[in-house]
Amino acid sequence: MGNTFGKLFKITTFGESHGVALGVTIEGCPAGLEIDEQFIRSEMQRRKPGQSKITTQRKEEDEIEILSGVFEGKSTGTPIGIIIRNADQKSKDYSHISDKFRPSHADYTYFEKYGIRDYRGGGRSSARETAARVAGGAIAKMLLAKKGIKITAFVSQVGELKLGKNYQELDFSEIENNMVRCPDPKTAEQMIELIDSVRKDRDTIGGVVSCVIENTPVGLGEPVFDRLHAELGKAMLSINAVKGFEFGSGFEGVKMRGSQHNDAFVREGEQVKTKTNHSGGIQGGISNGEDIYFRVAFKPVATIMQDQESLNESGDTVTVSGKGRHDPCVVPRAVPIVEAMAALVIADYLLLAKSNKLRDI
Amino acid sequence: MGNTFGKLFKITTFGESHGVALGVTIEGCPAGLEIDEQFIRSEMQRRKPGQSKITTQRKEEDEIEILSGVFEGKSTGTPIGIIIRNADQKSKDYSHISDKFRPSHADYTYFEKYGIRDYRGGGRSSARETAARVAGGAIAKMLLAKKGIKITAFVSQVGELKLGKNYQELDFSEIENNMVRCPDPKTAEQMIELIDSVRKDRDTIGGVVSCVIENTPVGLGEPVFDRLHAELGKAMLSINAVKGFEFGSGFEGVKMRGSQHNDAFVREGEQVKTKTNHSGGIQGGISNGEDIYFRVAFKPVATIMQDQESLNESGDTVTVSGKGRHDPCVVPRAVPIVEAMAALVIADYLLLAKSNKLRDI
Amino acid sequence: MGNTFGKLFKITTFGESHGVALGVTIEGCPAGLEIDEQFIRSEMQRRKPGQSKITTQRKEEDEIEILSGVFEGKSTGTPIGIIIRNADQKSKDYSHISDKFRPSHADYTYFEKYGIRDYRGGGRSSARETAARVAGGAIAKMLLAKKGIKITAFVSQVGELKLGKNYQELDFSEIENNMVRCPDPKTAEQMIELIDSVRKDRDTIGGVVSCVIENTPVGLGEPVFDRLHAELGKAMLSINAVKGFEFGSGFEGVKMRGSQHNDAFVREGEQVKTKTNHSGGIQGGISNGEDIYFRVAFKPVATIMQDQESLNESGDTVTVSGKGRHDPCVVPRAVPIVEAMAALVIADYLLLAKSNKLRDI
Amino acid sequence: MGNTFGKLFKITTFGESHGVALGVTIEGCPAGLEIDEQFIRSEMQRRKPGQSKITTQRKEEDEIEILSGVFEGKSTGTPIGIIIRNADQKSKDYSHISDKFRPSHADYTYFEKYGIRDYRGGGRSSARETAARVAGGAIAKMLLAKKGIKITAFVSQVGELKLGKNYQELDFSEIENNMVRCPDPKTAEQMIELIDSVRKDRDTIGGVVSCVIENTPVGLGEPVFDRLHAELGKAMLSINAVKGFEFGSGFEGVKMRGSQHNDAFVREGEQVKTKTNHSGGIQGGISNGEDIYFRVAFKPVATIMQDQESLNESGDTVTVSGKGRHDPCVVPRAVPIVEAMAALVIADYLLLAKSNKLRDI
Repeated sequence: MGNTFGKLFKITTFGESHGVALGVTIEGCPAGLEIDEQFIRSEMQRRKPGQSKITTQRKEEDEIEILSGVFEGKSTGTPIGIIIRNADQKSKDYSHISDKFRPSHADYTYFEKYGIRDYRGGGRSSARETAARVAGGAIAKMLLAKKGIKITAFVSQVGELKLGKNYQELDFSEIENNMVRCPDPKTAEQMIELIDSVRKDRDTIGGVVSCVIENTPVGLGEPVFDRLHAELGKAMLSINAVKGFEFGSGFEGVKMRGSQHNDAFVREGEQVKTKTNHSGGIQGGISNGEDIYFRVAFKPVATIMQDQESLNESGDTVTVSGKGRHDPCVVPRAVPIVEAMAALVIADYLLLAKSNKLRDI
Repeated sequence: MGNTFGKLFKITTFGESHGVALGVTIEGCPAGLEIDEQFIRSEMQRRKPGQSKITTQRKEEDEIEILSGVFEGKSTGTPIGIIIRNADQKSKDYSHISDKFRPSHADYTYFEKYGIRDYRGGGRSSARETAARVAGGAIAKMLLAKKGIKITAFVSQVGELKLGKNYQELDFSEIENNMVRCPDPKTAEQMIELIDSVRKDRDTIGGVVSCVIENTPVGLGEPVFDRLHAELGKAMLSINAVKGFEFGSGFEGVKMRGSQHNDAFVREGEQVKTKTNHSGGIQGGISNGEDIYFRVAFKPVATIMQDQESLNESGDTVTVSGKGRHDPCVVPRAVPIVEAMAALVIADYLLLAKSNKLRDI
Repeated sequence: MGNTFGKLFKITTFGESHGVALGVTIEGCPAGLEIDEQFIRSEMQRRKPGQSKITTQRKEEDEIEILSGVFEGKSTGTPIGIIIRNADQKSKDYSHISDKFRPSHADYTYFEKYGIRDYRGGGRSSARETAARVAGGAIAKMLLAKKGIKITAFVSQVGELKLGKNYQELDFSEIENNMVRCPDPKTAEQMIELIDSVRKDRDTIGGVVSCVIENTPVGLGEPVFDRLHAELGKAMLSINAVKGFEFGSGFEGVKMRGSQHNDAFVREGEQVKTKTNHSGGIQGGISNGEDIYFRVAFKPVATIMQDQESLNESGDTVTVSGKGRHDPCVVPRAVPIVEAMAALVIADYLLLAKSNKLRDI
Repeated sequence: MGNTFGKLFKITTFGESHGVALGVTIEGCPAGLEIDEQFIRSEMQRRKPGQSKITTQRKEEDEIEILSGVFEGKSTGTPIGIIIRNADQKSKDYSHISDKFRPSHADYTYFEKYGIRDYRGGGRSSARETAARVAGGAIAKMLLAKKGIKITAFVSQVGELKLGKNYQELDFSEIENNMVRCPDPKTAEQMIELIDSVRKDRDTIGGVVSCVIENTPVGLGEPVFDRLHAELGKAMLSINAVKGFEFGSGFEGVKMRGSQHNDAFVREGEQVKTKTNHSGGIQGGISNGEDIYFRVAFKPVATIMQDQESLNESGDTVTVSGKGRHDPCVVPRAVPIVEAMAALVIADYLLLAKSNKLRDI
């Protein structure tokens, strides 16, 4: 249980950080979609380690291999199988932590749940698993692109350092121009400096990724339990290191009065629009055609380059030493992961909405 | 799609605010559980309207009728069907808004999605639907009680007014002693005053419900997508008016360094415990035995007692008048709903964890 | 687990034979469908006990009550809740078998599985449960009628007595003209005589229900596991007393050569048709536009009006006496149940097929 | 939709006959199970083409590669990813049928459903897909072996030639001693002769595979829709070329009287047993501890070595020539596939039964 995401457009993943390969099976992609392998590769590049001085220096080529579901460049309606081999998965030595529980990692909980664990680099609990999601999300993005739907994520906070602007004031084309993926060049520079100084302290720091979904049609969402934002929230909370999710007015909105918070309906040509968008593009769990936007909180990475006291499997007190090459801050590489999961949700709900009305059947 | 929640212990609900009845089918409740009807009734009372001067003055008795699945006072393993009839569902006149889209309600999105809508009081999009959840959650709570698991929710913020204490400092036995369900009597009084003044302004205000789950066993959670907190998040985000969810250190945690945030493992007798609990009782998506705690943001209720400009189904500008009896602030009545959804998640994951290890099969 | 059927168009049922009521929640019915309550009632009448001398003489009015999902005579896209109250459910005395395992009933297996059982008339394992399916199937039939799809079941065998004609030679309008529901009046008469003589022997007998689905569009089916006939087979095998399912050439087809069995494609106007239809309207698990036809085997009813040796819960040898009013042959009343389950499968797969091609999205 | 089978123990497959590789993701395998790769390989050998003169002469090595979920020889509770590369998948020339609909194949239905098809050897509709099932089923078999559950399938009919014995009279150790996999050596010889003569006629023929499941615990099955035999039936009907399924007394049982058909409960030491087993080990959809047995009908393979008239995508009449190397009768190679699917169902229901009773939680 727990390795499949989605209802009609869905992915099933497998793979550990130091196993032979990661894999993803994408089901429900409508037939006839042109599959641009180069685009999948470029998405993988955005997530991969070693891309800049503020990410881990590990090297993973993250080369994808498509095994099925694509014929003469197009999806056939059958499941698309993709694998990503782990480079050098045998080389690394994890024996020094093989029976130790690293603080705030999943070592202890996996061991208790399953009675056994693959201690090499976190096994299934490693964020390496998200590579499979990015590959699946890339297929979803191609489908959404055909419908004009655009998903953009970016870093809006690192530690205390917040991007003090609304997303409407930002130039999204700047996002990929800096290594922290913040659309404001000046803030980006400060963030990079902060992360770099944290890295030098052999420590880590948290951050926030914001995401905007533009041009969603009205009517996506499956109340009462599978509200669009509930599924988006679950998707985001399923990403490693995430501690919170808010959309529209979010936690700040609780301070407002209804008279301020309500989004008045207005007419714009033939379209129904809202004057404000505190609803974040979703009302009653269903998209209303306005921009969907949300924020995702990432905790500081648990692996720090410092010695920490902990326990081993026998319950003895031990020292866990900081070794290896890890991210001082996870948010720059989390941007494509947030986008991938958002794309998967929107693609799935797009298909689900095809059978709402009798006149569509 | 969207009316079932859970995988093994699951509920399926139906019902509109002004239809004949609401209903819930509870599947997967293990056989042999004593079903205390009186307890279900008491949970319904905590959610029902008209319970105090700061909730809506509508009267709904919310009487439950158990139709199946219980024999001689015990669950039989077959689905438990419960219905809650709507009182006076035909009496109320909604014709004045029958073709108007109330701002920040689901009127517009339901109409566009389905091409038809039950305009009487919100239909399926009404928070009345959560009565069925509370009935189902009461069954889950009875199961959890047998395992010693305790779920406690309370109001921790109304508007700008925050309860400035950690949950450990609070006396949970105070929660039901005041009408706002805040465990700190002094803050409770201020909150009640605030809500009452907002009500007199014919306006509404948001708030936050906090929740603590005590005594969860280690090992609940189904990574990678169905992490325990991801499912809790989805459960909460599926409740009407919710805009955000955070657990453990949450959005504040992003400001911390890893060296501060990591929860050191320590031994306490035979038990593995953590010194701090920034993880919120969940690591790698799996419960670690510490308290699980989270916060849920509720926006101000959309129905205000003021005139608002909006559109009707034909796209004409119209005035929506504030009529009827509505909650000035939703959080006091949301407390049992948050608990119900949390109980459903934990019960479900408890059952899912029965097949993790070969030695349990 | 096990009380929901379907993926997009789905039903969830609850209820025991001697509980308060049966219920069904129908999800996924497209909005805007006219719901003809009278039609649901007429379907219920076809299944209800006491309808003729060859069915049980028990009296159940099987009155339905629609609780939600229908507004001003039309489906709204929200779940349709229906309940059917059990008449006199408290009056009957089952204490004489309360701890006895009736041979070939589910008494023993339910008791072992759940450790508790509702011994009154079979509880959840009673065929009474199928009343909820017929109500749900009636909604599916109304949807299919809009698409011109027609489902017809009939009795084709009772004991050794077989209807020796292909379905193409039969006059379906005769089916409801006789109490056994066989379209051939002469064979019907013989079947009725046979069942009546079995009844007089205080015994029971098996039979076969055949079903034809006409006018299905090409393209329904979800290979590889959810092939259209696999789901139809599961649907039929989920009905009480069913022991076998075959479609198209079925078990007889194994004797044929490929050169005889293959259905040649031919053109008929603009349409692709097949010369023969050994495939039973399904190729590769997907409908090909020809008639879908299949046969369902029902064993003799386990409740006989004779004394039988058996065991009780303590493992003692006991006598189970034949009491009460039961069907000597289940197939006449099974006809509407087979149709209902077939309708649910086809409706579900009709919706699933809406997202196969990119050009439909 | 349709590429996942199971609820807790489940497989998701991908792959076409002439794509790069087939794959299977096995989820829900309890942690700590020793994974014997050699056993998986031996199961693959039983299914692979070219194993004898009465199967296709195609060569596929069907080498498996385990990519995840196994650590130091044991399952870890995380998904097990396995791929099987297609040998020479690019070499074969299918251009002569690229736009033709082969009679009784899935060419036409896939083309209509998806608007595109991978014409190389049947693509996803090819029985080659079942290799992935056999790999997944091998894992399920290892789990069942730990519980003492044994699954045995064999060929019981080819064309008109029936094995005229009950399974209790057969020596299962003979099954693998002949190329047709019939446990009666004399009948096996006749079957081989028959298949060989059909092959020489450039034709094909159908057959029946019987299966017996021994030592199943009491209590497996999830009524009302997910009865154990309903899921077994669906599993079998999902295999290529299957036209029928019957269990216990099956279609013959309809001829019996209830007084003959009922299985009397008797005590055998401490155990509850039945005198006869017309129920086929399942009562009320739940296993009763007796042997589960069933029969599966396979039609003659559609690919024959003869010219056949058909249509192409443009609707023109064309000749489809019999080329290539195909099975004259599918049942010998279907034996391990039937076993694999049965093993998957039983493993899944074994896990589902862990949460039936309160005292197990």
